[in-house]
Amino acid sequence: MTRIAFWLIAVAIVAGLPASTLPASGAADEEAAPVFGIKIPPGYRDWKLISVAHEEGSLNDFRAILGNDEAIKAFREGNHPFPDGSIIARLAWKYVASEENNKAFGRSQSFVAGPPINLQLMVKDSGKYAATGGWGFAQFTNGKPDNEAVHKTCAPCHAKTRDLVFTHYAP
Amino acid sequence: MTRIAFWLIAVAIVAGLPASTLPASGAADEEAAPVFGIKIPPGYRDWKLISVAHEEGSLNDFRAILGNDEAIKAFREGNHPFPDGSIIARLAWKYVASEENNKAFGRSQSFVAGPPINLQLMVKDSGKYAATGGWGFAQFTNGKPDNEAVHKTCAPCHAKTRDLVFTHYAP
Repeated sequence: MTRIAFWLIAVAIVAGLPASTLPASGAADEEAAPVFGIKIPPGYRDWKLISVAHEEGSLNDFRAILGNDEAIKAFREGNHPFPDGSIIARLAWKYVASEENNKAFGRSQSFVAGPPINLQLMVKDSGKYAATGGWGFAQFTNGKPDNEAVHKTCAPCHAKTRDLVFTHYAP
Repeated sequence: MTRIAFWLIAVAIVAGLPASTLPASGAADEEAAPVFGIKIPPGYRDWKLISVAHEEGSLNDFRAILGNDEAIKAFREGNHPFPDGSIIARLAWKYVASEENNKAFGRSQSFVAGPPINLQLMVKDSGKYAATGGWGFAQFTNGKPDNEAVHKTCAPCHAKTRDLVFTHYAP
C-alpha cells in the first residue's frame, strides 16, 4: 500500500466512511461500476471463504466466493434475508489443467485456478437497492468496471434464487 | 465455543503455546494425527484463501486451500522455502452438479461443493519435521485423524514439487 493510500484509508476510518467507498488499489480516482455505483472494497481478497464452484461451457472458470464479516455471519447462522452491509465477492479464474500436479499423480486429473477472469460483487443495501431485491451488483475486469449492459443482466438472473444468492456455505 | 474451550485457549495464549497445539472443537481430548502429531488448528476455516482446485477420477473433489497468516504472507511475497509456523489447510468437498444453478442458467454447466470429504494440513517446522523437508502432514475425516498408513503417503508425493507445496497462489 502506498503512503497516500494508507492516509486516505486512515482519514476515511476517522471520518466514519464505510470501507466499501474506498478504492482497493489506493488510486483515489478509481471508477465505480455503472448502474449500482459500486467500487471494489479494499481488502476483499482477505475475506473468508463461503464456497467454491466451477462453470463449464463458455465460462469455463473456477470460482471462489468470499464474504465480508456480515455476509459470513449470515451464511453461518442461516440468516436470510442477508442484513444490510453484507458483501459477497465472487473471484473467477480460468479453469486450467495442472501438468505439474498430473505428473506427480501419474495421471491426468488435476485442475487449478489459472489467470484471473473477473471479479463480481453483491452489496446488500435494502434501501438503496430496493428495486433489485436489496442487492447491488458490480463486475470488474482487470480492476476496471464492465459496461452498463453487463450490469443490467445481474439482477434478473439472481432473482431466480432465494434472496438473490446462488451460493451455499461450504462447511 | 464452549466456556472450557475459551479458557483453554486463553490460558494457552497467555502461556505462549502455539495455536496449532489447541483443539478446534473445544474438546480437550481431541486426537492428534499419527506420524506427525498434528491437531486441527482452531479457526482454520476463517483463514485466507490461497487457491482452489478440482481432482477428477476416484477423488472427484472440490478443494479450497487456505493458509494461516504466515503461509499467506509467504505465498504473496514468493517467499520460499516457507518460514516455520506456516500452516496450509486443504479442505475437500464432493464435486457435485448444481441442479439449482443449472435451472437458472438454462443449461447443465454448474458444479459446486457438496458434503465435506476431509481436511488435510501441512505444518512447517524445519526442526521437528527435518526428515520430511520441514513439513508435517495430517489428514482428518469428520474431525478424526486418519490412520498411520495414510500419513506415510503424504511426504513422498509432496516431495515431487517445490518446497513440498503443490498449490500456487491465485491472485
